[in-house]
Amino acid sequence: MMKNFSKIALKFFIVILLLNIIAPPVAVAQSLEDIYSTPTGEEGLTADTSHLGDELHKWNKNMDVWFMLMLVAFLMLFIKKFEWGVCLAVLLVTAGSFITYMAIQQFVFGQFVWTQDWTIMGVFCAITVVIAIGIFLGTVKMWQYFLAGVLFAPAWIAVEWWMFSYLEGVVDPGGSMLVHMVAAYWGWGVILTLREKRAFDVPVFTTTHSVSFVWLASMLLWVLWPSFVTALLPADQVTWAMFTCYMAGLGSIITTYIFCMIWQKKVDPLVFTYAMLAGLVAIGSPLTSVDPWTALGIGLVAGAISATCFIKLHPWLCEKMGVLDVMAVNNLHGIPGIFGAICGGIFAGALMTNFVSLVGVFVISLVTGGITGLIIRATRGEMEIGSMMSDGADFVGWKPEPVATEDGKVVVQDA
Amino acid sequence: MMKNFSKIALKFFIVILLLNIIAPPVAVAQSLEDIYSTPTGEEGLTADTSHLGDELHKWNKNMDVWFMLMLVAFLMLFIKKFEWGVCLAVLLVTAGSFITYMAIQQFVFGQFVWTQDWTIMGVFCAITVVIAIGIFLGTVKMWQYFLAGVLFAPAWIAVEWWMFSYLEGVVDPGGSMLVHMVAAYWGWGVILTLREKRAFDVPVFTTTHSVSFVWLASMLLWVLWPSFVTALLPADQVTWAMFTCYMAGLGSIITTYIFCMIWQKKVDPLVFTYAMLAGLVAIGSPLTSVDPWTALGIGLVAGAISATCFIKLHPWLCEKMGVLDVMAVNNLHGIPGIFGAICGGIFAGALMTNFVSLVGVFVISLVTGGITGLIIRATRGEMEIGSMMSDGADFVGWKPEPVATEDGKVVVQDA
Amino acid sequence: MMKNFSKIALKFFIVILLLNIIAPPVAVAQSLEDIYSTPTGEEGLTADTSHLGDELHKWNKNMDVWFMLMLVAFLMLFIKKFEWGVCLAVLLVTAGSFITYMAIQQFVFGQFVWTQDWTIMGVFCAITVVIAIGIFLGTVKMWQYFLAGVLFAPAWIAVEWWMFSYLEGVVDPGGSMLVHMVAAYWGWGVILTLREKRAFDVPVFTTTHSVSFVWLASMLLWVLWPSFVTALLPADQVTWAMFTCYMAGLGSIITTYIFCMIWQKKVDPLVFTYAMLAGLVAIGSPLTSVDPWTALGIGLVAGAISATCFIKLHPWLCEKMGVLDVMAVNNLHGIPGIFGAICGGIFAGALMTNFVSLVGVFVISLVTGGITGLIIRATRGEMEIGSMMSDGADFVGWKPEPVATEDGKVVVQDA
Repeated sequence: MMKNFSKIALKFFIVILLLNIIAPPVAVAQSLEDIYSTPTGEEGLTADTSHLGDELHKWNKNMDVWFMLMLVAFLMLFIKKFEWGVCLAVLLVTAGSFITYMAIQQFVFGQFVWTQDWTIMGVFCAITVVIAIGIFLGTVKMWQYFLAGVLFAPAWIAVEWWMFSYLEGVVDPGGSMLVHMVAAYWGWGVILTLREKRAFDVPVFTTTHSVSFVWLASMLLWVLWPSFVTALLPADQVTWAMFTCYMAGLGSIITTYIFCMIWQKKVDPLVFTYAMLAGLVAIGSPLTSVDPWTALGIGLVAGAISATCFIKLHPWLCEKMGVLDVMAVNNLHGIPGIFGAICGGIFAGALMTNFVSLVGVFVISLVTGGITGLIIRATRGEMEIGSMMSDGADFVGWKPEPVATEDGKVVVQDA
Repeated sequence: MMKNFSKIALKFFIVILLLNIIAPPVAVAQSLEDIYSTPTGEEGLTADTSHLGDELHKWNKNMDVWFMLMLVAFLMLFIKKFEWGVCLAVLLVTAGSFITYMAIQQFVFGQFVWTQDWTIMGVFCAITVVIAIGIFLGTVKMWQYFLAGVLFAPAWIAVEWWMFSYLEGVVDPGGSMLVHMVAAYWGWGVILTLREKRAFDVPVFTTTHSVSFVWLASMLLWVLWPSFVTALLPADQVTWAMFTCYMAGLGSIITTYIFCMIWQKKVDPLVFTYAMLAGLVAIGSPLTSVDPWTALGIGLVAGAISATCFIKLHPWLCEKMGVLDVMAVNNLHGIPGIFGAICGGIFAGALMTNFVSLVGVFVISLVTGGITGLIIRATRGEMEIGSMMSDGADFVGWKPEPVATEDGKVVVQDA
Repeated sequence: MMKNFSKIALKFFIVILLLNIIAPPVAVAQSLEDIYSTPTGEEGLTADTSHLGDELHKWNKNMDVWFMLMLVAFLMLFIKKFEWGVCLAVLLVTAGSFITYMAIQQFVFGQFVWTQDWTIMGVFCAITVVIAIGIFLGTVKMWQYFLAGVLFAPAWIAVEWWMFSYLEGVVDPGGSMLVHMVAAYWGWGVILTLREKRAFDVPVFTTTHSVSFVWLASMLLWVLWPSFVTALLPADQVTWAMFTCYMAGLGSIITTYIFCMIWQKKVDPLVFTYAMLAGLVAIGSPLTSVDPWTALGIGLVAGAISATCFIKLHPWLCEKMGVLDVMAVNNLHGIPGIFGAICGGIFAGALMTNFVSLVGVFVISLVTGGITGLIIRATRGEMEIGSMMSDGADFVGWKPEPVATEDGKVVVQDA
């Protein structure tokens, strides 16, 4: 079914592009008049907002989610010889997924999509696959990120359908399942069928500043997170949700630090900068069902779980499965997403529904990801290990630079 | 006339500064009461907004444009030995232009300028000249950026007058002409009279991270762009315009990648990070006259044009004219700005008006830029090539660092 | 009294954490119904806003202040071997202070704190101590930043009480006293009792990019500042305050440049990036009592004062007092904060009140800071100079890298 969706979407996309070139401006102007009426006077989502007021508030949040999408690129920028490629991959997968999502909703399902709500769903779709590509980042050809985005959009629409049309009463306002679990398990679906074992052998170096970019991205993602989880909420719930969100985030900052110290005596900056966001992932489902102090508690637990998964689960799981989760996405988005879904179930009294939902999300994501992995594998062609996780493979002007090796020596790093 | 404007502005500016020092607080407090009445109860730009509601929404966009102005500095930060100077130049030209613009509007034309609309115009003026200095960046003395800002403000007011007072019906809500074309051709006016041929000979090196800052700036500029193009629109048009804007931006991401690959087999990161914004430049004029899919089409064309101009037109044009457009501003802001103005004309049924407008904008910008170039040349004094594009010339604490040369060697780079 | 406050806060905090674990979800859900009523229909702070409208506008500013808090970390990132530690310290002190502040207000004073106004106060408290730790950054153990945050919250509540409950009519809408003076003199209180003289001897190196991160932080802090100073203002004052704020900021950009040139012939980037914010610090008190041109004047004076303090006062004062203000916080937040408080007094006709207030703020901050310094000293244990201002002490994966020494040589820098 997913393949059908994507075929239809692609077909429509091509038709629309052609129409754009030949459609006379007059016709466009006329159709605008019919389709894009201004929302004057409609009531909003609460008694004291107008529809326009809602749209204006969501306008800012919509933009914040795009901002976060770009920051996710910088969260993955720590491999010194593979920075620009991460940015380019993020931009291409974003273009592929957002355009396809909007095209499917407008032309297949006939939705009037150019509202804040629908476009926020579009950028949610895009940010989900941006997170997901972290799992196989640097192991496929550059143009395939665009392909991955196109293939992801119908998969995500299937998850949407499962959670909110097929099931009833699923509690997930902030996307613990819809965004984080999907990202983790769709991406794992891809690597399980792509089976690129050489990813384990690519030499990677970090430098002070490649990691400082990650700190910047992580800290700003942390700050912008309330816009992400409240983007679709009625206005009278957003203040409350802002602070369940921030309190959960503060919780995971504290326990990530503590558990890094417990397991390794020092802090691994790439564990800390990731796991400090785990409370924000986990609060997605219970977002509006708990008070801020309970949210703090959820964040405290989530940080501990995530840090432990990064340090203990990750090496074991990747070896066991024989594939590398390059950015260790499972430990920030997968496990804490499941934890969040369960918390949402508990605190909103919908445990069974959320459990059924998360099982379905897990299965749909793995299967559609697996199909995508097969397509990527079939279309990738030759790829040398030297061109994996390497800006030298894709960019003019990239040059080797001195970096520090793990034993403290300075070497000139080749692509 | 421009020189007159600037003289008057400077005069008034000095008078105001003096007044600030001697005016007793009491008088200030009293004048505040008269001038700054609160906007309570006035109707807004649509039937269901109040004036105060409009102001609050624009408040956020006003700030976003200032944010973008600062990001433009980081878009120009790729020359490793010339980073801090770019930031300082941007700050000085901003101070010069914004203050002068507001002073002229308030004291010469008697406007009540401390509203969102007028101050947004002020920061538009500032961001335009920030883009423009990219054309001669590193070839003038640091204090002259402030001077350039002061001289630019009256020139920009002249363009404003041409487009919106002299002409009628010009379609340019998002500034394809007013911001981008003016930036490109005022700056070209400057270099044509400044005639600093040694700019061709300054050795420039980039490093992984000097270019990663550019990726950061470009990706965040992309995200914030809807605030720029919708800052002055009525509330019921901003959602629509957000998505014609983003769709055009997605379009140029796709074709910039494709055309980089076509022309050079690999991607030049400094071409991609710039040309990926071309759709956003071009959508400025047709912003509210097209639907999002047409906007995607405009972005697809704009990205292709811009990437091609960077790779093919730029070297030829600079050699032909005998002057170096340092940041290649013409290829992102000039040509795509013209393309946008024509698209706006076509899709809004105002092709002739927009054409007349763009010719006038081109001429006024070149002439006022040319005059500015003469003034800068006359006041610059001695400037050695070693102090061009060099932080060593302006900053305490700048030290040479190891960088990679084009043939892969590591050298210690002198100022 | 401060120690009492902090003990009570800690006690309550622990109780709450325990409650979170054992409290059944049902009880939580019920309590939510009682406590968190939606604000539908209440009037806002001006005649034409609703309470909900106010909350929505403040929502964005609340987030902007969190954004600024994170940027303050990057403002302090110039010591190449001590970047990640600054980020981690900022996150830990934020968690400690924000949680403690909210806990005290809710559980000691019985406030209903999860509104925009109260949470903005919470993040103001956090950003104040984030600034303050700059004074002893790198000279205490990592976990002690969390402790410092916990101890700071009750101190800040005492200042709040002094300024707005004990005194009447203090003019400080933008926090010249409440944030900047408190940050500077609480931090100085800490170093005066901590007495860590070895801080003078820690070798510190900067690189082009460690300083470029500071430019980024400073320029974005500058942009976001209006959100900080207007976060608690009624809607009809925020546009005006945005522009007294920006004009003051433009003023300090200009004179910081001029005074850097006067004193040192070249610009010290670490002086410029800090002192260019001085106008924004100083405008905090007179924010809504002056017009934009007077604000420009205040900024011009503040920039001159701050730059001069950095270059002339700082070395003398630190030597005289025998302690090092690591980030020279006094010169940006202390002196310009005092200057702002006096300006606010003059222009709002409340000179005597503001003067009494600033003296009290100075004393309370120094004393509570001093007590904190004693506690930190007593609990710090052994700390070698080699682990001061050093990421090597706290992080897995930190490696020495080549940096440039002051005399232009390239050395491999050890922790």
